[in-house]
Amino acid sequence: MKPVNEFPSADGLWTGIRLAADAGVEAAIVVEQGAVRWVGARSALPAEFAGLVPHDGGGALVTPGLVDCHTHLVYGGQRANEFAMRLAGATYEEVAKAGGGIVSSVRATREADEDTLLAQAAARLEQLLADGVCAIEIKSGYGLSLEHERKQLRVARRLGEAYGVTVRTTFLGAHALPPEYAGRSGEYIDLVCREMLPALAAEGLVDAVDVFCERIAFSLAETEQVFKAAKALGLPVKLHAEQLSDMGGAALAASYGALSCDHIEHLSAEGIEAMRRSGTVAVLLPGAYYTLRDTHLPPIAALRAAGVPMAVSTDHNPGTSPALSLLLMVNMACTLFRLTVPEALDGVTVHAARALGLQDMHGAIAPGMPANFVLWNVREAAELAYWFGQQPVRTVVRQGRIAIGANA
Amino acid sequence: MKPVNEFPSADGLWTGIRLAADAGVEAAIVVEQGAVRWVGARSALPAEFAGLVPHDGGGALVTPGLVDCHTHLVYGGQRANEFAMRLAGATYEEVAKAGGGIVSSVRATREADEDTLLAQAAARLEQLLADGVCAIEIKSGYGLSLEHERKQLRVARRLGEAYGVTVRTTFLGAHALPPEYAGRSGEYIDLVCREMLPALAAEGLVDAVDVFCERIAFSLAETEQVFKAAKALGLPVKLHAEQLSDMGGAALAASYGALSCDHIEHLSAEGIEAMRRSGTVAVLLPGAYYTLRDTHLPPIAALRAAGVPMAVSTDHNPGTSPALSLLLMVNMACTLFRLTVPEALDGVTVHAARALGLQDMHGAIAPGMPANFVLWNVREAAELAYWFGQQPVRTVVRQGRIAIGANA
Ligand SMILES: [Zn+2]
Ligand SMILES: [Zn+2]
Repeated sequence: MKPVNEFPSADGLWTGIRLAADAGVEAAIVVEQGAVRWVGARSALPAEFAGLVPHDGGGALVTPGLVDCHTHLVYGGQRANEFAMRLAGATYEEVAKAGGGIVSSVRATREADEDTLLAQAAARLEQLLADGVCAIEIKSGYGLSLEHERKQLRVARRLGEAYGVTVRTTFLGAHALPPEYAGRSGEYIDLVCREMLPALAAEGLVDAVDVFCERIAFSLAETEQVFKAAKALGLPVKLHAEQLSDMGGAALAASYGALSCDHIEHLSAEGIEAMRRSGTVAVLLPGAYYTLRDTHLPPIAALRAAGVPMAVSTDHNPGTSPALSLLLMVNMACTLFRLTVPEALDGVTVHAARALGLQDMHGAIAPGMPANFVLWNVREAAELAYWFGQQPVRTVVRQGRIAIGANA
Repeated sequence: MKPVNEFPSADGLWTGIRLAADAGVEAAIVVEQGAVRWVGARSALPAEFAGLVPHDGGGALVTPGLVDCHTHLVYGGQRANEFAMRLAGATYEEVAKAGGGIVSSVRATREADEDTLLAQAAARLEQLLADGVCAIEIKSGYGLSLEHERKQLRVARRLGEAYGVTVRTTFLGAHALPPEYAGRSGEYIDLVCREMLPALAAEGLVDAVDVFCERIAFSLAETEQVFKAAKALGLPVKLHAEQLSDMGGAALAASYGALSCDHIEHLSAEGIEAMRRSGTVAVLLPGAYYTLRDTHLPPIAALRAAGVPMAVSTDHNPGTSPALSLLLMVNMACTLFRLTVPEALDGVTVHAARALGLQDMHGAIAPGMPANFVLWNVREAAELAYWFGQQPVRTVVRQGRIAIGANA
């Protein structure tokens, strides 16, 4: 990988670009010391900026850098063989015998050393970045012990440094019950709350805390126990909520001021109302819906009516969403979930930033914010949602540097 | 675009590669004058080839070049705005008033001159090629008059020359009734059969003939009229069959020895049996199924049981499948249609080649065949189907030249 400090500076005057909101008009962006100094119609550009180093966008459309606000990017191995076996008709038992399921990802993650995990995750991260991602959330949850959760979170931090991309780490120790705690869920949650989380937080490895609240994972009471531990440490929470059933997790999370509730296919009206009051973002994960051939849609219309902000993310993970393109999720959010194009684009920018508490740094192109934006080879914003399997990136400006493409 | 003759020759000895069928063993491919001279385990490489120009694949997995056997790639404009309007709740009438629907693609295609059409299609073709496509079928059907169908087919031929990619043209004059023939379907089909097809065939622009046989398009009798005209000219036929209803089109097409029947969501047992007897390929189009949120699956199990070869294609078109990745269709064929991984990979290689009558030139890596193969950055073949939204191409050898990537 190319060292970040070899990326050229994006400082200067960007012209020959069009903003998605008003694609018919030529725009200009002034970048100064890695931050946006000015943005608007080129015709309104103050004279003082006219002489800056020019960057010609060649007529490209510009949007804020994308934000992938829910991923499990760091794990050992992958599960293509399990995918193939299932399609070939293998039973659940046969897949398990061959080492499939989440347990196999836990095993492979524990077995891998930090550098191996880093190399494997880096290859995936590069694909997401190629799509214009400028900030990404990465969860732990395949280590399920202090040592191995630490290893995952350290890799997440190192990825952020190596690629010059904003990484928000989320501690998801309560992702699954590790095999050695089978039948002792309460003991494991005690460990998560009393040892793992405080230690990792003290090491600066935890930006937020998440739980998989589901009948096949952890109960509402266990979820609240983790939330209390997070609160005691001053850490924000989020939740894998109501994916397979209505557990009441969203309302609980909202009562803790959660940044986001994610999946939410089975979210109730009470959950929506609680999220609205707490300003919690609804994170929609169409890649998992698609891979699982789910048919129970999240309550999009009710969320829209309540004004709950909706984000869209890859949910990248080796089991239920091996997705490597956030732009494809934009198409899936429209096609499968019937989000409008502006909703889907807001879902991977401004609302995704908010789901990570990053609204002051990401999701918009505005004076004072770090320069994170993407130039796309399309005429109109709707094309970003319309084509699928596309690769329309022309240039990515990330953390004030030209990280990808033309102008670099 | 880079001129084809600047692509480096792929002649020489390719090592550091693994064949999908036996990914644990290092393989070697000998390319001589643009054709495959030898392929097998490296340990079995005859000594006479050991000294050839070396090409190191870096451990990549190799498959035959992909074949996209059903596309409508050449058209004017695009319909992202219509996509956005529909999601925003516009009615069919509102979309039509705003110039939506197939009529808008016909209008835009007719209005565009040949060079404009070429440039627009080239941008899309480049994205498909980036995914490892080495042969592609391109249909007419948005011109719907001799002049404009000719223009589309000429653009298809020019794309093949410009990019050094095998293009098979398919005349689809019977795609839709042009507005000026409203209510005069019979007259239009007469025009297709007596004037358009013979003229375009005489100009060498037609490799095969296709019809959209559906209640909303052309009847079974009209379809047969076109097939007879094709037969009289010695041209092979294929058919858009049973997508929305069972019209009996597949059996008719099979009786004309059709290369393929495509879509076939509503294919009957009789249709399957007829296809089996005639050796007709079943072309599955999961991108359209996905975009239309169809729920009626093609009869995969029955096709499998009958031994009918199944191909998979993008069906790239501006209305129902704006797909720009054949590899994504491999994932969709597995995820949505439950093809096994080997079936899906055969579907974009050997069976797709057969659907175009190209089985001697494409879809396999074998001595005597032109060198068309792809090096992928994956460990095992199942990964080509498992990840979605991925960009795993390392190198593409197309028509004996290194068209993309490392080694170029
Ligand atoms: Zn998740
Ligand atoms: Zn078609």
